[in-house]
Amino acid sequence: MVDQMNATEKCTQLLKKLVEEKGEILECGILKVDSFLNHQIDPELMKNIGKAITEKFGKMELTKVITVESSGIAPAMSASLYLGTPLVFIRKKRPITMLDYIKAEAPSHTKGGITELFVSKEMLNPNDKVLIIDDFLASGKTIEAVANMVLSTGAELKGIVGVIEKTFEKGRKKLAHFNVPVISLLKIHSLNGKVEFEN
Amino acid sequence: MVDQMNATEKCTQLLKKLVEEKGEILECGILKVDSFLNHQIDPELMKNIGKAITEKFGKMELTKVITVESSGIAPAMSASLYLGTPLVFIRKKRPITMLDYIKAEAPSHTKGGITELFVSKEMLNPNDKVLIIDDFLASGKTIEAVANMVLSTGAELKGIVGVIEKTFEKGRKKLAHFNVPVISLLKIHSLNGKVEFEN
Repeated sequence: MVDQMNATEKCTQLLKKLVEEKGEILECGILKVDSFLNHQIDPELMKNIGKAITEKFGKMELTKVITVESSGIAPAMSASLYLGTPLVFIRKKRPITMLDYIKAEAPSHTKGGITELFVSKEMLNPNDKVLIIDDFLASGKTIEAVANMVLSTGAELKGIVGVIEKTFEKGRKKLAHFNVPVISLLKIHSLNGKVEFEN
Repeated sequence: MVDQMNATEKCTQLLKKLVEEKGEILECGILKVDSFLNHQIDPELMKNIGKAITEKFGKMELTKVITVESSGIAPAMSASLYLGTPLVFIRKKRPITMLDYIKAEAPSHTKGGITELFVSKEMLNPNDKVLIIDDFLASGKTIEAVANMVLSTGAELKGIVGVIEKTFEKGRKKLAHFNVPVISLLKIHSLNGKVEFEN
């Protein structure tokens, strides 16, 4: 139990260190984490994320981990490996192999405009117990759209993980109505000139 | 040594079973593997892929695993976790956070048209020893474009992995001039009406 408690704390510590050492603040409140989370991916961080998520959700008998391509796939894949639970990633462009699908829309933060979200109907069913994992919890709009896609299939939403939470964008409030645990592994309170962590 | 030999064989057996049970042949020679490799991802398969790739390349002192979003990320992430080597995924759309980059083009097989490929210059340098991993080795055109991006930075290409190889598309021939090991975990000889495996 002590070891289990440590997985989340260890992950938060490592993530904080990486953000402090390698994160860059760009305009528009964007935190660039390309060197360890979003473009280049640090395997040690991913292991810690997988263990931390398993610590929090390992007993929930999840049947699916859901994320959105592409930045969500790495942390969600690691969690899927530790949990032993299949991963489904929602696509932003429908491949010609996807014929029977659910579609939703969400605003894109780092690419501008509206992002379309597609998931094959075969991948979710009313017996599923679903954990949503994404790299960021910011405005919560993309995660809200994904949660609604999950619920529209009759599946049960069991929890939401954003690896890094920008608390000042208040996404957590937007997701409160789903009434499930919303977990983040690092909370950022402000990006005005420097990164300020919560706690 | 016997245990190590078994990782690749075990992976090939599992992959073959999944293709036989769940793969679907679509028009245009496309093998639909959405339920375990490309959209929903089987964690047991990913573990086996990670172990098999580590068996083949674990002693090469790799410094980077490179793949292309989105379908390559899951198997490449698993390999990155087992190897303990950072993963870089090449993007098909440039995010506004990527400012100094290398760009290439490759034809898209399942989406039609030309795909643009972007990698940040910070992520590759002349000291890197690189393994390229993708879900399919088919015509080899995308992998060839990625290999040329890697070499353009002065990095050393150490090997190429396509999880499933469509041998009839002759990509292996296209990649021969790189003079590195090209490994696939399942070889498909023909998709005319049914899947025919090589060996």
